[in-house]
This record gives sequence, structure tokens and C-alpha cells, in this order.
Amino acid sequence: MNEEIKKQIIELLETKRYGNLYQYMEKVNNQDISLLFEELSEEDMVLLFRLLPKDEAADVFSYMEPDLQEKLINCLTDKELKTVVDELFMDDTVDLIEEMPSNVVKRILKTVNKEDRETINELLKYPSDSAGSIMTTEFIDLKVNMTVEEAFKKIKKIGLNKETVYTCYVLDIRREIIGIVDIKDLLLAERDTLIKNIMETNVITVNTLDDKEEVAKQFDKYDVMALPVVDKENRLVGIVTIDDAIDVLQDENTEDFEIMAAMTPTEDSYFKTSVWKHAKNRILWLLLLMISATLTGAILTHYEEAFAAIPLLVSFIPMIMDTGGNCGSQSSTLIIRGMAMDEIKLKDFFKAIWKEIRVAILVGLVLGICNSVRVLIQYHDLKLSIVLGLTLIATVCLAKTLGCILPMLAKKLKLDPAIMAAPLITTIVDTGSILIYFSIAVSIMNI
Amino acid sequence: MNEEIKKQIIELLETKRYGNLYQYMEKVNNQDISLLFEELSEEDMVLLFRLLPKDEAADVFSYMEPDLQEKLINCLTDKELKTVVDELFMDDTVDLIEEMPSNVVKRILKTVNKEDRETINELLKYPSDSAGSIMTTEFIDLKVNMTVEEAFKKIKKIGLNKETVYTCYVLDIRREIIGIVDIKDLLLAERDTLIKNIMETNVITVNTLDDKEEVAKQFDKYDVMALPVVDKENRLVGIVTIDDAIDVLQDENTEDFEIMAAMTPTEDSYFKTSVWKHAKNRILWLLLLMISATLTGAILTHYEEAFAAIPLLVSFIPMIMDTGGNCGSQSSTLIIRGMAMDEIKLKDFFKAIWKEIRVAILVGLVLGICNSVRVLIQYHDLKLSIVLGLTLIATVCLAKTLGCILPMLAKKLKLDPAIMAAPLITTIVDTGSILIYFSIAVSIMNI
Repeated sequence: MNEEIKKQIIELLETKRYGNLYQYMEKVNNQDISLLFEELSEEDMVLLFRLLPKDEAADVFSYMEPDLQEKLINCLTDKELKTVVDELFMDDTVDLIEEMPSNVVKRILKTVNKEDRETINELLKYPSDSAGSIMTTEFIDLKVNMTVEEAFKKIKKIGLNKETVYTCYVLDIRREIIGIVDIKDLLLAERDTLIKNIMETNVITVNTLDDKEEVAKQFDKYDVMALPVVDKENRLVGIVTIDDAIDVLQDENTEDFEIMAAMTPTEDSYFKTSVWKHAKNRILWLLLLMISATLTGAILTHYEEAFAAIPLLVSFIPMIMDTGGNCGSQSSTLIIRGMAMDEIKLKDFFKAIWKEIRVAILVGLVLGICNSVRVLIQYHDLKLSIVLGLTLIATVCLAKTLGCILPMLAKKLKLDPAIMAAPLITTIVDTGSILIYFSIAVSIMNI
Repeated sequence: MNEEIKKQIIELLETKRYGNLYQYMEKVNNQDISLLFEELSEEDMVLLFRLLPKDEAADVFSYMEPDLQEKLINCLTDKELKTVVDELFMDDTVDLIEEMPSNVVKRILKTVNKEDRETINELLKYPSDSAGSIMTTEFIDLKVNMTVEEAFKKIKKIGLNKETVYTCYVLDIRREIIGIVDIKDLLLAERDTLIKNIMETNVITVNTLDDKEEVAKQFDKYDVMALPVVDKENRLVGIVTIDDAIDVLQDENTEDFEIMAAMTPTEDSYFKTSVWKHAKNRILWLLLLMISATLTGAILTHYEEAFAAIPLLVSFIPMIMDTGGNCGSQSSTLIIRGMAMDEIKLKDFFKAIWKEIRVAILVGLVLGICNSVRVLIQYHDLKLSIVLGLTLIATVCLAKTLGCILPMLAKKLKLDPAIMAAPLITTIVDTGSILIYFSIAVSIMNI
């Protein structure tokens, strides 16, 4: 939002010129008003909220963060709360109920009529990662034998409370979908055309229990604005709209980033997560990885004689470990992301490994030769130079192969491939590379 | 697509029963047909393509991968090519021209009329990361004094060739936007209402040269289906639709994953990228990181006496390095992602550092104590146990602070924060942690 307008609003609030305030508010987007609320005192927030027209108030409310929503609800009368909840879309109401403490939930449910309360209870039952949990039950349904004219009348009658009017669903008597009609086709058709003559019968549906991430990916694949959700009996029970699909995609990406950096993912934003929670999310993986790293240490103690004889050998450990870790994380990142984007499938297993092995040989040769030359120039020691060259080539090949195999294996075992990212791969490759390094060193340098 | 239908289509193709084929094709989505094309021979693909109605053919074509598009174009007559290009939306035509080799581009441009050719040339001039490069020039424009009835007539007349009819733009005589009308508002209004009475004057616009990632983020923030793009003179020149915004978001996420794993990002998918290209994208960073890792090695040579005296010290190096790297990558990932999602801003610098330091102390204490206890039990060496405990606490604090500071510093310097991810942080932290480890060891163990 324009900083100028924000300043003006705050100033008008402070000087209590509410008439002018009303005019100013009209210039501001609802999303920006909800952001502005975060900076206001409780009284100013409630005051400003009461100035909003009721449909806009509900819209602003739906954009607010849960903690702010709770604060606001606690300041509203039951009647005001009812006005807000009545205007909310069903999926937003369900989200709200899931976030609020029980006393607030009770107040919200009291404002809702019996029929809606049943719908809400149904929606609350869907698992949190399912399509059912992100769908809304408000959509426009048409019948095959309606004319375009009648369809428009129906939209005009019920459209105001529907989340989207861009796609309408044609249902039969059992509420199964037999077609969809895009609003564009309705607009371009003649008024007396029958719906059945313009509807698209080739409908993509998802199931209430489908994974919401898979559902979100369908939006990307099929370029649709909404997807119909059907229950086990194939009846239409709701729709998922594209704005919710984008949120799911972004949340899943954030989750992948967090898992790939060895953290327990959290749904809250960085600053909203407490220090304790942050620490808790990170310690488990760190401990686990620390324990596995001691395995590499155990291998090192095995070669104490070797580096007691030639202490210089120790100084290459960080370079070998880091390079191995980086190579492994490059491969695993590409494979994990490729699988998340459906570009790499499990049936491509050997194709992917073959590709990684060829890349590894190329990369390994370049890094190995660079290092051999450097060591030869710096230490004038041909054997040491050969040891390092060979170690790097072998380490790169090991790292890239594991980086490719492990995420695919995880997927095959129905685990999240993202756990097989840099941190775990690095720890595993470390053990291998140290073993390779000292085996080669011992045999070539006759220690 | 249903595997059954796919088999049927291929069988009908083989047995040349084209009449039945036509019926079958109607059951399949255009996106799925484009995927099916990848598995067909060139002749079958062209044959099937010619069976499609012309608007669907163009739609199928727009979903195809560039290499397949090129193959197909080479099989089409100039007249057929013209039919396809005429039906394509302007942004898809521009994408096509950018991907095709020059001889194909010449053929495409020959099919386009002069006016469109000028538009295409204008669009090709926008930088590849700008809003201009992803916008389409096809939108519905209305005037303030039109009635709803007239607006519908205009949509009916020109709507067929517009990418979206969901949002219409109200322009003044200089083609500046003065309002937008959602199709829903048009449908709910009375026929004789004037556009100016139902239009929303609070319009979010983006500039042709705005970064396309920033533009895509606006879709997430404002829940819109399309955003109008204006030029320097504030005239409406195009719109970005939500399907393209999703592509941009997903591409940017993939790019971040790749940069954060120390790779030069590529736009092609994993298997479409050649082995050489893969190797090239990875070697540069690996070499750079390898060279910086030798710095850690140089520090180690400094302490040769220490680990000649107590060789056991060496065996803890992997654990310290890995833990430092993992702690640093946890923090940097959260900060990088937080900044990408606009949850963490540069002005939050000190707030973020303060949070990370507190988390680091907690995590460091837990890891340090666990390790001290383990070492004490395993080696019965109190001094060694204290050395490791202190080293871990200091390493964790260093890693988390750097992991927080460096990405924000990069952003401040207008660099991509994603380069300050696990690989680079790990290398930097390694140097620090080895230095800390041996300094503490030397002073406590009196080596």
C-alpha cells in the first residue's frame, strides 16, 4: 500500500475525523487494510473494522493472521461476529475454526445456522492434507436442460454468495457431474441454447481424500481456475479454487526447503515461530546427523597410523568432505525437485542413474585433475598428487550416485524424498569418501 | 490420462480406423493429448493433429514441448501453420518464436499479419525476467459510459479471442486504466447499469519492466486472476494471467533450489538438459568451493603438532564440520525462504539475528552437553569432553549467526540471497569451526 495513504489513515484515526477516514479507506485494497491492522492498536483496529461495509469487512477479515483474527473477535459483539461469519466463504470459516481456541470456536458456531454447522462439521473431518480440507462447498450448479438464459438467472440469484462464478457445474439428479460450463461459453452462446449443447463433458475431478499437493499440481498441468471435488459415491461436494491451490504449492515448497535443510517443517512463519519451537524443530535432525558423523570419526581413528606418519594427509580432509557433500547435494536436489515437479518418475530410475554417472565422471575428472596439478605444484609429491586425484574422482562418483539413488529409493518406500537431501547425503558420503581416501593413500603411499 | 483410452487411440491409429479415432479424441483433455504426442511417431502425431478441430489444435500445440513443436511445424504446410498461429494467444506465439530456430521463426512470422508482427516484435523486446515478457496483449477493454448490456455485446463480439474474460478493463481515451469490472459484477448487475457505477476504481497495476517474480507474488497476495500491465506512460499494454504467474512461481522455486545446492540454474527439465550442460552447471561452483575448502586445510596444517600429540583429535573433525554446516544451512534456508516469501524484510535484520542467537544458544547447549557426556563415557577424558562441548556451542553460534547474516547481506548488496545457502555457508563455517576447535584444544589440553 502507498505509505502516504497509510500515514493519512493513521492521522485521521488519531484526530478522530471518521468521515474523511471512510473516504480514504475506499482507496485501499482489502489485503492492504488487513496488513495495516497489524500496526494498529486494538481500539483503532476495531474502530476501523466497524467502518467497513459488511461484505468488505468479511473479506478483510479472511486475509488477517489468526492471532489478529482472535483479537478482533474478542472485541466484537455476537451480532457483529455473525455478520462477519455469514459473509465468509465456507472454506475460510473452517480455516478460522481450526485456528481459534475453543471458547472462540463456541462463539463462532453459535452464530451459524444448523445446516451450515453440519457442513462445517463434515469439512472439519477431512484429513489436513486432503483436497476436502481446502475445498469450499459454495459453487454454482446447473442442469442439462436449462437454457443459457435460465443459467444466467440462476447465477444472478445465487451467485453473490459463491466463491467463483467462472466455472459452473452441470449435475444430474444424483448430484454427479456430467459436465462443466465456463462463464465465457455462457457469454458467447445464444440465450436460448441448452446447457447440454455447450457444456464440456470431459471433466477432471479430484476426490475428497486426494492429497492436496497432487490436487494443486493439477492446476498447473491443466490451467484451470477451479477443480470439482467428488466424494466416494462420485457426487460433487465442493470445489478447490486456484488461490487456495497456489497457497498449497507455496507451502509445499517451503516445507521441502525446510526438510531439505534437516528441519521439522512448521506451518508458521519465521517470526511467528517461538525460539523454543525453532530449537525443537532443528535439534532432532542435528543430533541424528551428529551421531552418524561420529561413524566417519570412528573410521578416522582406524587410520591414526597413516596420518601419524604423514600429517599432511589430514589437511585434505575438509576439501574431500566438502566436495563430496556438495556433489551429492547437487544430484539429490535435482532428483528431489524433478520428482516433486513430476519431471522425473520412478520408472526413470536407471535413466537418471546413467545420466548422473556420466556427469559424475566428467565432473570428477575435472576436479581430480585440478587438484592433482595443484598438489604437485605445491608439494612436489607425485604419489600424493595421484592419491588426491583418484580420491576426488571416486568421491564425486559415489556422491552423485548416492545423491541420485537415495531420494528415489525414499520415494519407492513411500517416504518423503526431501529427507534424502544435502545433510543426510553429506553424512553418508563423508563416511565413504574418508574410507576411499585413506584406502587409496595407504596402498599407494605404502604407509 | 486413462491408460485404457490411450491404448485404444494407439490401436485405432495402427488399424487406421480414423472415424472412431475422432470420437475417442473427444474424451481426452488437450493437455493429455499433447503428452500422448510425445509417445507417437512423427506420422501418427501429424495425422492425429490434423484430426483435431482448429481451436483445439492450437490449444494442444501450446501445451507441447518446444522440440515437439518444432518437429510438428516441420511437417505442417504453411496454410496449416497459419491456422495454428492465428488461434494461439499472443504470449504463446512469442514464447514459440523465442524457442524455435531461425528458419522456423521465419515461417511463423510469414503467417502473421503486419499488425500482429509489430506487437510480437514489441513483446520480444522485453527483458526475459520482466512482466512484459510474460504478458499477453489480448484483453477486454470497456468504456465508462457503456451499459452492462453493451459490455456483454462487446464481450460476445471480441471475447472468443481473448485469453480471459473474467476481468474487463475500463480505459479512458488515452488508454489509461480507470477501473476494472469483474465478470461476476457484470452478471449480477442490471442490464442498463452504467459500467462506471459498478467498476472497482482501486486497481493494482504492474509495470512492463517489473520483475516477473515480484508480479507473480502479487497474485498470491491479492488473490486476483489477472493483473494489468502498464507502460511508462501508464497506458494499458497487456495483462498477466494467473496460469503464467504459477509457472513463474514454480520456476523461481526450482531456480532457488538449484542455486541453494551450488548449481547454475537452468530452465530446461532434468532429462532435457544434456550431460555436458549438467556438468558445466555444476563444476564452476564445485571448483570455487573446493578452493575455499583448502583454506580450512591450511589451518589444519597449522595444528599438525597438536594432532601428532593427540591423534584422537582428528576423529572429531567430521562431526564438528558436519554439525556446523548443518546448523548454518538450517538458518540460511529459513532466512532465504523467509525473504523470498516476503515474511522477513531487511529492516528485520537485528530481530532475525537476535532470534537466531537465542536458538543457537539453546541448540548449542543441547548438542554440546550430549557430546561432552558421550566423550566422557567413551574416553574417560574430562578435558577432551570440555573441549568438544565448548567447541560445539561456539560452532553452533557461529554457524547460525553467519547463516542469518550472510543471506541478508547478499540481499542488501542486491545479490541473490540464495547463493548464501548450505554449500557456501558450510565452507565458511568449516574454517571457523576448525579454528575454534584447535584453539580451545591447544589451550585446555596444554599441547
